[in-house]
Amino acid sequence: MERPRHQGMAKNTNMRWRLPLVCLLWEVAMIVLFGVFVRFGAEADAHWEEEKREMNLTSDIENDFYFRYPSFQDVHVMIFVGFGFLMTFLKRYGFGAVGFNFLLAAFGIQWALLMQGWFHSFKDGKILIGVENLINADFCVGSVCIAFGAILGKTSPIQLLVMTLFQVTLFSVNEYILLNLLHVKDAGGSMTIHTFGAYFGLTVTRVLYRPNLEQSKDKQGSVYHSDLFAMIGTLYLWMYWPSFNSAISDHGDAQHRSAINTYCSLAACVLTTMAFSSMLQKKGKLDMVHIQNATLAGGVAVGTSAEMMLTPYGSLIVGSISGIVSTVGYVYFTPFLESRLHIQDTCGIHNLHAMPGLIGGIVGAITAAAATEDVYGKEGFIKAFDFTGVYRTRTPSIQGGFQAAGIVVSLLMAFAGGAIVGGILKLPIWGDAAAENCFEDGVYWEVPEDEESDVYHMHNPDKPASP
Amino acid sequence: MERPRHQGMAKNTNMRWRLPLVCLLWEVAMIVLFGVFVRFGAEADAHWEEEKREMNLTSDIENDFYFRYPSFQDVHVMIFVGFGFLMTFLKRYGFGAVGFNFLLAAFGIQWALLMQGWFHSFKDGKILIGVENLINADFCVGSVCIAFGAILGKTSPIQLLVMTLFQVTLFSVNEYILLNLLHVKDAGGSMTIHTFGAYFGLTVTRVLYRPNLEQSKDKQGSVYHSDLFAMIGTLYLWMYWPSFNSAISDHGDAQHRSAINTYCSLAACVLTTMAFSSMLQKKGKLDMVHIQNATLAGGVAVGTSAEMMLTPYGSLIVGSISGIVSTVGYVYFTPFLESRLHIQDTCGIHNLHAMPGLIGGIVGAITAAAATEDVYGKEGFIKAFDFTGVYRTRTPSIQGGFQAAGIVVSLLMAFAGGAIVGGILKLPIWGDAAAENCFEDGVYWEVPEDEESDVYHMHNPDKPASP
Amino acid sequence: MERPRHQGMAKNTNMRWRLPLVCLLWEVAMIVLFGVFVRFGAEADAHWEEEKREMNLTSDIENDFYFRYPSFQDVHVMIFVGFGFLMTFLKRYGFGAVGFNFLLAAFGIQWALLMQGWFHSFKDGKILIGVENLINADFCVGSVCIAFGAILGKTSPIQLLVMTLFQVTLFSVNEYILLNLLHVKDAGGSMTIHTFGAYFGLTVTRVLYRPNLEQSKDKQGSVYHSDLFAMIGTLYLWMYWPSFNSAISDHGDAQHRSAINTYCSLAACVLTTMAFSSMLQKKGKLDMVHIQNATLAGGVAVGTSAEMMLTPYGSLIVGSISGIVSTVGYVYFTPFLESRLHIQDTCGIHNLHAMPGLIGGIVGAITAAAATEDVYGKEGFIKAFDFTGVYRTRTPSIQGGFQAAGIVVSLLMAFAGGAIVGGILKLPIWGDAAAENCFEDGVYWEVPEDEESDVYHMHNPDKPASP
Repeated sequence: MERPRHQGMAKNTNMRWRLPLVCLLWEVAMIVLFGVFVRFGAEADAHWEEEKREMNLTSDIENDFYFRYPSFQDVHVMIFVGFGFLMTFLKRYGFGAVGFNFLLAAFGIQWALLMQGWFHSFKDGKILIGVENLINADFCVGSVCIAFGAILGKTSPIQLLVMTLFQVTLFSVNEYILLNLLHVKDAGGSMTIHTFGAYFGLTVTRVLYRPNLEQSKDKQGSVYHSDLFAMIGTLYLWMYWPSFNSAISDHGDAQHRSAINTYCSLAACVLTTMAFSSMLQKKGKLDMVHIQNATLAGGVAVGTSAEMMLTPYGSLIVGSISGIVSTVGYVYFTPFLESRLHIQDTCGIHNLHAMPGLIGGIVGAITAAAATEDVYGKEGFIKAFDFTGVYRTRTPSIQGGFQAAGIVVSLLMAFAGGAIVGGILKLPIWGDAAAENCFEDGVYWEVPEDEESDVYHMHNPDKPASP
Repeated sequence: MERPRHQGMAKNTNMRWRLPLVCLLWEVAMIVLFGVFVRFGAEADAHWEEEKREMNLTSDIENDFYFRYPSFQDVHVMIFVGFGFLMTFLKRYGFGAVGFNFLLAAFGIQWALLMQGWFHSFKDGKILIGVENLINADFCVGSVCIAFGAILGKTSPIQLLVMTLFQVTLFSVNEYILLNLLHVKDAGGSMTIHTFGAYFGLTVTRVLYRPNLEQSKDKQGSVYHSDLFAMIGTLYLWMYWPSFNSAISDHGDAQHRSAINTYCSLAACVLTTMAFSSMLQKKGKLDMVHIQNATLAGGVAVGTSAEMMLTPYGSLIVGSISGIVSTVGYVYFTPFLESRLHIQDTCGIHNLHAMPGLIGGIVGAITAAAATEDVYGKEGFIKAFDFTGVYRTRTPSIQGGFQAAGIVVSLLMAFAGGAIVGGILKLPIWGDAAAENCFEDGVYWEVPEDEESDVYHMHNPDKPASP
Repeated sequence: MERPRHQGMAKNTNMRWRLPLVCLLWEVAMIVLFGVFVRFGAEADAHWEEEKREMNLTSDIENDFYFRYPSFQDVHVMIFVGFGFLMTFLKRYGFGAVGFNFLLAAFGIQWALLMQGWFHSFKDGKILIGVENLINADFCVGSVCIAFGAILGKTSPIQLLVMTLFQVTLFSVNEYILLNLLHVKDAGGSMTIHTFGAYFGLTVTRVLYRPNLEQSKDKQGSVYHSDLFAMIGTLYLWMYWPSFNSAISDHGDAQHRSAINTYCSLAACVLTTMAFSSMLQKKGKLDMVHIQNATLAGGVAVGTSAEMMLTPYGSLIVGSISGIVSTVGYVYFTPFLESRLHIQDTCGIHNLHAMPGLIGGIVGAITAAAATEDVYGKEGFIKAFDFTGVYRTRTPSIQGGFQAAGIVVSLLMAFAGGAIVGGILKLPIWGDAAAENCFEDGVYWEVPEDEESDVYHMHNPDKPASP
């Protein structure tokens, strides 16, 4: 039914040769680069028995696998089910939400293993990978999933792959600047993942501004069951966020502490989100959009500070504030961004990732600046901020300053990168759909006939009842 | 469409100021109380390096985080996705099921951290928390989710928050009596979580009896896809129940044994549930209500005894019996409870939690009473029942007696507490809906327009086919 | 509505006495056999304290529970949610997909614990079980879930139970031949689980060939939301496959390596699947059937070799190829198998499990044959292939030969076993439905009235709108 229309628009959305070409070329490139560069790290290599002896380890349980694999799996679920299903709220874009998220994430993790590997795990000409690299690759792709949220429903799968290619690259550069040059702490990625990913995506969607998007307005909403599918995504993101923020923290107390802080922040965030969702609506009814999204802001907002001594009540405060900011954002900022700044933000990532990400960066800077040897213990203080080697003499307040600089760098990288990548995506060769076919799976997917027609007749009262 | 009707009933269900007020006041109270009382336990504190030295621990892997965090995450999924989606079976109450469960659980875990903390983790004026506290908070809230099942669809979110506040408090008192005063074992919570939670909820729903509930009869059923959503909840509860029952057991063999016993009990339970579901229906067809619920009774019924030497075949016996009892309950007891005792039990928690919880308590008492040093080993015997200190001289049969006393105490607490809390919830200030608007999301939620109207015209054959 | 029709066919699908009888008899048999044979292994027994001392273990963390339990839970999710929901893609067979999968898996794991126990964990007349046995039981049942995919929608629950009984038995015999007699490595089960399970199921469905199946053609498709439910299954299988392939590998580097190889293979597989799904369709649109299934082939195809030094780029190659083979299979082989060979393969297990399973066996044989002490290290080489005891003198190329023999044995067992079991299932006593009632939940399940009738009138424009 949508075919006559979009053929009439002379937009060629046929992916038949372009998409396969991009995917296959890419996979060949990955195979070659992995062949040249990627090998197992010591803990995943069959030489581990010898390594163990050298390192004086008495048990296999000391393998990093057992410290991080459960968290890795939780993060993996967040990327694929969490982000994927969170975006299925649109009534006719569930295949695209889950399917394109699947595609870009599978594409991105391979490239992230390489990019991050070159920066962080390169030794004697080889990238040595282990479970921590898998987590970091998922993290990196997480920032692409965030950006995807801004342009959801408006781009072709090829555009998503092109964006992924560039964004993973820029993410890795930004991450390197923050973690290695500025020596900033950001285990849960408030800055590197959320602030960068969200402002990158918002810039891209600004460049790709579609003036006639109201033509597909009827498809931008949800239906009852699509909202329930989206809640699957929400809950998995919410439940596993403690794993996300603690996944790459130092072994021991840092992982433990990150999980507790995140758990507290998220719990508080749910309450303030519910409160403001009800308060900002005339009849006091709760809005599923807020519940699906703003309840997660508490996880974003402690991303930097969760592994620090934020304390449980500090986490409650941060979580409470971020839930309020995020919900208010959905009600007031998103319409403003669209009408005034021409930023069409499908999933409202400005409210869920951008603002809470900034809060997270700022809270991290403050928490770092406020650190004392008394609170952390002498050894704990050095370990928490890695004040060793050339950073031996760094003080908390200087660390706080560098943390703040990390926010600025992430923003600049996001704006500049987003502008360039947005420009590339604007080229008329990527097969994006016309405005009236946005948010519609039928453009890129085989969609089962009957229910589609059922939905159509629901929206077109002038059509007969039985298809 | 529902608006004219419930406005006509002069029931004010507008949550606009009441719900925000309760949520925000509550969150402020939590921040203050956490600020005064809650701190990181030794294993989550940055002083852990020193602690490790003192405790003579050679590896970070000895941190309790690595013993319990994977189980914690499974329990977390059970509370939020498990209970949340299990209750989405109603055709028009999916938002309320998932969303209110989310709200009350996020509300409850904060309060549970405090209440349980004061009873069990209080040291020098501070509550010291770690991963085990997070699990226990989830457990406590689990009992509220159970009670929610009895009143599902019939209460306002404020009533749920009020109930949570009181139930968490009573839960903690009851738990303290059982675990500390009676020195009872109940790692999987057959008594503290299931028996208490279920009879509490049943008493509340009895007090809140609605004589005209048949006015919303048409909304008390499921539709095809709502039954599938509910199966997501069922399966996550079923799969992760071994983690639930083993999450706070002693390190080592006790956790291992709990998981195996629960796995066996649940497997057996599925078979007897299917058998009786088919047998008790004239045409021999399976009933989704039974499959969604009674298959889980096996997990409830080994909650107390799973960490004991119940043995795999013992678990099969317990699981088999509880599946039968639960299925028979759905077919015969639930209608009886409603018509004769005026207990309107939306989800049938009497069958899934109350009766299996009692079975669990009894099986626990018997298993404890039957324990011998031969079966457990000398050290294992002492460790399993914590027969140290003042309990050094306790014998298995005395322990069995105390276990049985634990059931009675839990029942009394549930009945008394439920009666009082039910009375409070009956006050006409909480904004509950009229009888004909029960089981209907539109009362408290913004519901997407189109599909709603679609469902309406399906049920009203006298309306024209196109809305 | 289906009742008059299938009663007219004189097929008695009433399960009332048959299904309960089978389930209850079976459960009693399990209780008796468990009572006679099954006991806790040392690590789950209360005597563990003494065991620890004897084994000179200094920490409870050395209990196998902590090495394998997180992976076990992931595997558990794959079996029950993964396979269960993957098969909900049919528009009117969601209850059967999830529910019967639940039934047969719960039935099968008990029998698998016994069968595999007799072969592998039998000591002094007792089967001693621990977490590894639970994983292996899930694995075994996984092969039944695969076979279920071929006959999905065409059999009664009793037939499924009968098939499970025999298939678990044959699986265990085949596994014993491979692992113990041929001393073959197959930690992720490319041969024992996938090749065996798939060809067994394909043989069964061949024997049960239904010439008039086009009568239920309209129910063999999906609807929009059933495809989304199926994606839940797909994603959980995809995300947790690294846990599947590493769950029973040796502690330490082998588990770590298996997870990495599987992660890489699966990522590559998604890209080639998307490429070929788009390429093989005239309009270049993606097909949900491919995305739901072929993206998983990469996990199957490294099942044997993942714990070997396959290397990340090797995994990318294997994953890429298997995605292509599987997608091409869906487009060309499945119709061919049905029209020419009369193999009606509902879920296309030939493409997802059979062919990738064969690839997996072959890649395993090659990887084993190519192993050198240089790549594995002297100790790692011996440990990886267990070249100890009577196998001390085995060379890699001989091992490769035995691996290849394992494929052949699995195929022969599958064909022979499938033919016999198919013959048994063909007996007219099991209550299967008539051809026109296949793929229809209403035959064996109580189905909510309204939506069912809604679907009916959608498909039958000549029927009145209200049922």
